[in-house]
Amino acid sequence: MQTKQILFKSRPTGVPTIENFEFVDTEVPAPKEGEVLVRTLYISVDPYLRGRMREGKSYIPPFELGKMIESGVVGEVTESRSPQLSKGDVVVGMMGWSLYNTVNAAAVMKVDPRLQPSSMALGVLGITGLTAYFGLLDIAKPKSGETVVVSGAAGAVGTTVCQIAKIKGCRVVGIAGGEAKTRYLLDELGVDAAVDYKAHQGANSMPAMRAALQQACPRGVDVYFDNVGGEVSDAVIMLINNGARISLCGQISMYNSQELDVGLRPQPFLLINSALMEGFIITKYQARFAEGIQQLGQWVAGGKLKHKETVTEGFENTPTAFIGLFAGANLGKQIVKIG
Amino acid sequence: MQTKQILFKSRPTGVPTIENFEFVDTEVPAPKEGEVLVRTLYISVDPYLRGRMREGKSYIPPFELGKMIESGVVGEVTESRSPQLSKGDVVVGMMGWSLYNTVNAAAVMKVDPRLQPSSMALGVLGITGLTAYFGLLDIAKPKSGETVVVSGAAGAVGTTVCQIAKIKGCRVVGIAGGEAKTRYLLDELGVDAAVDYKAHQGANSMPAMRAALQQACPRGVDVYFDNVGGEVSDAVIMLINNGARISLCGQISMYNSQELDVGLRPQPFLLINSALMEGFIITKYQARFAEGIQQLGQWVAGGKLKHKETVTEGFENTPTAFIGLFAGANLGKQIVKIG
Repeated sequence: MQTKQILFKSRPTGVPTIENFEFVDTEVPAPKEGEVLVRTLYISVDPYLRGRMREGKSYIPPFELGKMIESGVVGEVTESRSPQLSKGDVVVGMMGWSLYNTVNAAAVMKVDPRLQPSSMALGVLGITGLTAYFGLLDIAKPKSGETVVVSGAAGAVGTTVCQIAKIKGCRVVGIAGGEAKTRYLLDELGVDAAVDYKAHQGANSMPAMRAALQQACPRGVDVYFDNVGGEVSDAVIMLINNGARISLCGQISMYNSQELDVGLRPQPFLLINSALMEGFIITKYQARFAEGIQQLGQWVAGGKLKHKETVTEGFENTPTAFIGLFAGANLGKQIVKIG
Repeated sequence: MQTKQILFKSRPTGVPTIENFEFVDTEVPAPKEGEVLVRTLYISVDPYLRGRMREGKSYIPPFELGKMIESGVVGEVTESRSPQLSKGDVVVGMMGWSLYNTVNAAAVMKVDPRLQPSSMALGVLGITGLTAYFGLLDIAKPKSGETVVVSGAAGAVGTTVCQIAKIKGCRVVGIAGGEAKTRYLLDELGVDAAVDYKAHQGANSMPAMRAALQQACPRGVDVYFDNVGGEVSDAVIMLINNGARISLCGQISMYNSQELDVGLRPQPFLLINSALMEGFIITKYQARFAEGIQQLGQWVAGGKLKHKETVTEGFENTPTAFIGLFAGANLGKQIVKIG
């Protein structure tokens, strides 16, 4: 079968550019016993992929030059040599950036056909939703009435975290870049306050950010769900309460940096407040994914949890959609839809 | 009863000086019903007291100007109006820096007369030992074979942490200032490696510190018990392993600073290693103090846990002994012995 693939051509030195990717026309091998051929419907592009573009230690092994980039993909089985899956089944899993992938049937999961659009299996009812669910509830353990601050609040994980925190009865403060995003958080997701960090940049950014946050958090910060790191996080950390919990999900502001991350050391604030800061990787919760998906599914079905996505059309725009994440181009989950 | 007291005269702006303290001759009130009069035998001087010299939020309320400084004190009951305590009993508790204190009998604890010297009730068998015990075992949970790094390793808490980590079968690396201290750690406490941070200061301190630590931690760092903060901690954090736990006990290098603590942000390291960093205050474990003291006592009795102290003689030298902590003048627990 003829396919187009996107290969990892060169390691980026700052923000990734289109030159780091290479499009090739090639053949995808016919499925062998136990394998299926999957036609790509949706590709998930995620900030964490930037980590895999670096050499050396990160969440998971780095991408190899000259090989396909891979990420979460939803696709349709067009040929099956496995009794587990039939032609026409929609599946989700880690697959290559390719119009077609041949994969082991055990490496993908069938998507419930009632899930519409099926791209939700990459978002609120997939790894994104699970990341929000366990990162908030298991690491940060918010209690009703507590103040929960979410950075990257208008992103894929952030929008879900904001809503789960509201479901749990918390005062939710979202930090996002630009008025369209803060309006979305306030009007559509019902957060209690939203802070536009782009309104507070430049030489005096820290004091201005602090003042805006302080106003949004009159009772301080009990939980901080951090997707961004950097100066935004500095401002939040200065407001933490005794016993605060900080869940480190991402540090998108730092992913493209070649330098060590220098700024406010949080240790003195953690110390005087007996507070906790913990990084996590979602695969840690693999054994509890079913529990998470079931709960998230109930909330979605009950209208309590909205699925928001930004859709880019066309396989050829996959790298651009990925690069756009670092400029904050997306509202909710960034998806590429294959025509 | 005539007494001498040390009052808090002015708030220090950097390292405390003798001018921040005032000696006064005054009367201590006679004990009322339920109270005892206690003659001071030993005064504990501790880095955390610096935090109480600041206005504003810290572990516990700030000291008030013109009032006595207070800290852990061991003393002998010279007059009792409580059925709980008799004349001649030795007690420990939070008391003023004074030759005599009149206190409620319920506010102090009787020290086991077999404890010799009774100053151990301020050190390894007191709050210091409990801080090491719970901060290491409850927050950082070291497992046998893991690498445990301790900063401020030759200090009161540090010496105890090093020994408990050895008891638990860990590879222990102590960081301390000066060769006398690193020799003590190696020769007397049996740590596996010791790093002298004073041999690695100045413009190129970070790379040199890192190299020395890396050599001392060939399998990376699983647990970091942090008493000091600052650049020493930066170097340790860069070496943490997946699933590392960092117990924040103190940040002595920062206590005298008027500025925000700027340096390496640990968040990226915590994130990619799914690691935890947690501040704690020992009063959190009040309900488990008896358990801790019993275990520490067994180790001391069994010769597995040594009590090391630096003794300054004379009430009039109490402020100087306190100030000396910030220059690292002490090896083990700094005590003032009253003549």
